Amino acid sequence: MVTKLLIEYDGTDFAGWARQPGLRTVQGELERALATLLREPVELTVAGRTDRGVHAWGQVASHPGPPADLRGLNALTPPEVAVIDARPAPDGFDARRDARSRTYCYRVHTRRAASPFERHRALHWPYRIDREALDACARMLVGEHDFTAFTPTETDHVRFERIVLDAHWRQAPGDVLEFWITADAFMRHMNRTLVGTMLQVAGARRDLDSFARLLEGRPRKEAGPTAPPHGLYFARVDYDTDGGTGPAPDTPAE
Amino acid sequence: MVTKLLIEYDGTDFAGWARQPGLRTVQGELERALATLLREPVELTVAGRTDRGVHAWGQVASHPGPPADLRGLNALTPPEVAVIDARPAPDGFDARRDARSRTYCYRVHTRRAASPFERHRALHWPYRIDREALDACARMLVGEHDFTAFTPTETDHVRFERIVLDAHWRQAPGDVLEFWITADAFMRHMNRTLVGTMLQVAGARRDLDSFARLLEGRPRKEAGPTAPPHGLYFARVDYDTDGGTGPAPDTPAE
Repeated sequence: MVTKLLIEYDGTDFAGWARQPGLRTVQGELERALATLLREPVELTVAGRTDRGVHAWGQVASHPGPPADLRGLNALTPPEVAVIDARPAPDGFDARRDARSRTYCYRVHTRRAASPFERHRALHWPYRIDREALDACARMLVGEHDFTAFTPTETDHVRFERIVLDAHWRQAPGDVLEFWITADAFMRHMNRTLVGTMLQVAGARRDLDSFARLLEGRPRKEAGPTAPPHGLYFARVDYDTDGGTGPAPDTPAE
Repeated sequence: MVTKLLIEYDGTDFAGWARQPGLRTVQGELERALATLLREPVELTVAGRTDRGVHAWGQVASHPGPPADLRGLNALTPPEVAVIDARPAPDGFDARRDARSRTYCYRVHTRRAASPFERHRALHWPYRIDREALDACARMLVGEHDFTAFTPTETDHVRFERIVLDAHWRQAPGDVLEFWITADAFMRHMNRTLVGTMLQVAGARRDLDSFARLLEGRPRKEAGPTAPPHGLYFARVDYDTDGGTGPAPDTPAE
């Protein structure tokens, strides 16, 4: 028996998803709570490993064994983590391997004065933003590209090509601009570096041609800075077997 | 010269608005920053004093003297407080006395699992809610009523009548139900006790007739519990002299 968990977390005070000795991580906290409830060690497989400070609205993880009681599970995890659903999955289900696509959202707060309510939840960016340039960048992202320029040089991948199924910017309430991107898979820092580089284009500090060339496998140093983690949300996973999880890209994010 | 400030704050870590010796308060932090910038003591007059843990999206305060530099002001206040606007007001302007009406919003998160993102920001209420009963309560509130039942017995008021100009519930994104209320003025705990009592009606633990009778000046002990402060937002003030501040009652709250 395999169980599929749908998980939401505020990543502010975690050293990311992945269990690491001596650090407070989302996986570590969840596995400890599950082991207590199921009375045996539990190892989680996750759809998208997130870095320190990154949040999740619709993370999915799987583990062998039956679903734990949801109320008990949430009582044993810190308040920054919520398991929204725990249900039996088809035999052999694997949250990472079976994911057809992942969707992330990056939130940018554009008002002049920083917002007390967006602290740790959105990048405060009270600078020039050419919205048409952002839209043009997003359109270029769709399709298969070599994202070498958008991941740290030490990253150890076999392939740097990824297939972007959708990418767009949208205006959300409360002076928040959101970048939504769906791809088959992502590399480390890829979304944050895409956002950091697109904000250069939006501020007329880089032109669209330069952005286009970066998608052809240029070295990391040619792309822009890595935007901070606190604007990034792992929003949703889609599987062949169901209708996906988390908010759809056009749902106003709360 | 008088200056009018538009202020947003996350009330979680403050002992409320009003300055109190030895306590961290919004007024205390703002007055200290203003005194530093304007090089003289500043005393703020506020449209709505809020209690410990209550938030604000559109608080208004006034003080004698010219506007301080907004960037400097926000650099000197804690990140949980943002001054969104500071501008000269008509001579004699007083943020409290001149307010024609105040608008509050109370946010209730209704999903079964608590949300990491609504912690300290909405009341988690995963219980039965009869939405029609809530709507019926809100309709009853509009007009002039005696709100004695909805404020602590020790409250020292001359009159307990208040005029409610608008009151309604609305469904917001992310499983949040919002209660919006606009009145000429409010008494201490009035909104929180209204919400606590309406949730009794919504859970079939009190009938509509009982709620109606409470609006005729019944003693405090006949009303329901005081809902916690962290769901409450001071949303907006309207003045005769301008178009008001903060989000309008039907703007999706962020």
